[in-house]
Amino acid sequence: MLDPDLPAFQDIQTPALVLDSGALARNISGMAAFAKAHGIGLRPHAKTHKSPRIAQLQLEAGALGISCATVAEIEAFAQAGIPGLLLTSPVADRAKLERLARVARVTDIRIVVDHADQIGVLCELLGEGSRPLQVLVDIDVGQRRTGVCDVASTLALAQLISAAPALRFGGIQGFAGHVQHLIDADERKAAAAVVRGILDAHLRALADAKIDAAIVTGSGTGACSFDASGPYTELQVGSYVFMDADYGRLQREGGGALPYEPSLFVLATVTSVNRTGEFTVDAGVKALAFNGPTPELMIGAPAGSTYRFGGDEHGMITMSPGSVAPKLGSRVLVLTTHCDPTVNLHAYFHVVGHNNGVETWPVLARYGS
Amino acid sequence: MLDPDLPAFQDIQTPALVLDSGALARNISGMAAFAKAHGIGLRPHAKTHKSPRIAQLQLEAGALGISCATVAEIEAFAQAGIPGLLLTSPVADRAKLERLARVARVTDIRIVVDHADQIGVLCELLGEGSRPLQVLVDIDVGQRRTGVCDVASTLALAQLISAAPALRFGGIQGFAGHVQHLIDADERKAAAAVVRGILDAHLRALADAKIDAAIVTGSGTGACSFDASGPYTELQVGSYVFMDADYGRLQREGGGALPYEPSLFVLATVTSVNRTGEFTVDAGVKALAFNGPTPELMIGAPAGSTYRFGGDEHGMITMSPGSVAPKLGSRVLVLTTHCDPTVNLHAYFHVVGHNNGVETWPVLARYGS
Repeated sequence: MLDPDLPAFQDIQTPALVLDSGALARNISGMAAFAKAHGIGLRPHAKTHKSPRIAQLQLEAGALGISCATVAEIEAFAQAGIPGLLLTSPVADRAKLERLARVARVTDIRIVVDHADQIGVLCELLGEGSRPLQVLVDIDVGQRRTGVCDVASTLALAQLISAAPALRFGGIQGFAGHVQHLIDADERKAAAAVVRGILDAHLRALADAKIDAAIVTGSGTGACSFDASGPYTELQVGSYVFMDADYGRLQREGGGALPYEPSLFVLATVTSVNRTGEFTVDAGVKALAFNGPTPELMIGAPAGSTYRFGGDEHGMITMSPGSVAPKLGSRVLVLTTHCDPTVNLHAYFHVVGHNNGVETWPVLARYGS
Repeated sequence: MLDPDLPAFQDIQTPALVLDSGALARNISGMAAFAKAHGIGLRPHAKTHKSPRIAQLQLEAGALGISCATVAEIEAFAQAGIPGLLLTSPVADRAKLERLARVARVTDIRIVVDHADQIGVLCELLGEGSRPLQVLVDIDVGQRRTGVCDVASTLALAQLISAAPALRFGGIQGFAGHVQHLIDADERKAAAAVVRGILDAHLRALADAKIDAAIVTGSGTGACSFDASGPYTELQVGSYVFMDADYGRLQREGGGALPYEPSLFVLATVTSVNRTGEFTVDAGVKALAFNGPTPELMIGAPAGSTYRFGGDEHGMITMSPGSVAPKLGSRVLVLTTHCDPTVNLHAYFHVVGHNNGVETWPVLARYGS
């Protein structure tokens, strides 16, 4: 477990994102061993970490490639030399499709679509002589976010892609974000089975039409343990590298613990100690994403303490009765609320490694476009 | 009202922060006129906009100076030549107090403290011959975040500051973040009166001890209309420049409308249109802060539409029955949820000005330290 009083932290001004490289490595090798044991591929999601350094560790552990959520991410990861990139969000405007076509000319990428218009523009942009771009059909498996809603649409788009010289039909994506965070493990297992049933129906229709879906991609940290024997050929797991208060709730309350450990924290300084039973730290809404349960793990705060947001720059920590507050100016490590958007609030990871030395790794493509 | 199909927006990739300079100018001059009519000063808060360009407009309209929430903000604004800076958060670690002492050597700043330890370190760092740093006592007026909790502490700190050659006692701060967002106007008015009563008690004790509190700073956009005749000498208003869904709720439901208009939006692209009755845009948790009501104003979406978050990169917009979805790839302007943390998610404002031309203004000091 990290120590907020680590000498190397003295030079870091707060709030700052701190990563335990030992816990990170154990999470990465644990997921890799799980996938290998089940003969399934991993294409871990970069929207969680936005770090080519972490992507490289995932690839070294056997990942097929890396998933990206934005064009900016796929550009940054391609430039960093990361292979096997998949863009998991359909892109609908011409300017971004142009950027994708540019990346596709120099790197082997794959993307998803959910509308015929996207295929038309891609064909126009890629031109005749280019290496075919691998395109998957995105299927709405119940999240009501992106994707086609019926088997006929999947078939129609797969046929359009197959008929386009500049494109190659790569398979299907069914991402079930609504399933990953269900707290109860039995409920999550049942919901994941419904999603796999939907994908099976689409795959049968493609098989009947003699269209080969080489890739079936989806799942996530919450449901991957149920999804390894399903129709998926690969898993888009993201949060397992860091874990957070959100997945901590699944661990504590859900039954069927996830075999990963918290590696990511926000280092904060105690800035006010005048009130009985509580104190204030300099990590608020601009340092910890708001969309998750408040952190239940705070190293450096008395056991049983609870956190509440105090606006942009402050968090208030209430101690259990009889506890003694940390000293003004001392440090606390706060578990992240929801890891992905918390990472996006910071410019760097401060990575605690061998012999407790600290390296800084940049967070890339933070602008979301 | 801004138009999502403005030709100048075609070159902007989404999600992007868009600012209506006309509405911004009206909000700034409206607040300036209010303050002038009541003979009260304004030190608007930069944590809302993190933009020296906007600070400059506030100063040109008569503001005394600008408030900052972090040392990084006060450094960035000092470097941009913004005068009259006040740091509204007490700082408790030596490294940041050193940074403040460095800024204080070249620029006229003022800061707040809530503990004697801070005064001790400041005296040590500033040295004998320096121009005295103006220090205010931060008072907890009920938010339970920072500040001293009783009159005796205010008096003790004011005496310590007054006795220190490197420091000058500047007055008191009582920021009531818990009051600004109360929806009901009568409830907000009553809560603001309680806060002013607390400050009056501290001011009486200082007066009895013959200590002059030149500055009494606090209030905000939600309560400023009640606070102009109180003990405050200046108001730390922030959100009035942009307004947002949070203050929109006060406007709609609270009675006693605030005389400011929405100027800040997130420009988003329609990325999925397959579902009946709804569509998806590329603005999610990484483009719109989560800690506010979801936006009720979406220009380019059918009237009566509602937004829900769809993860890091997506938002789903449900239309009222019978509405026709916008075309795939078209643009929507989404009112911000809570303006301050939304600005912090973006690197630039795209500012729509004269003749609908667009300038980019950077968002500074986004790392929170």
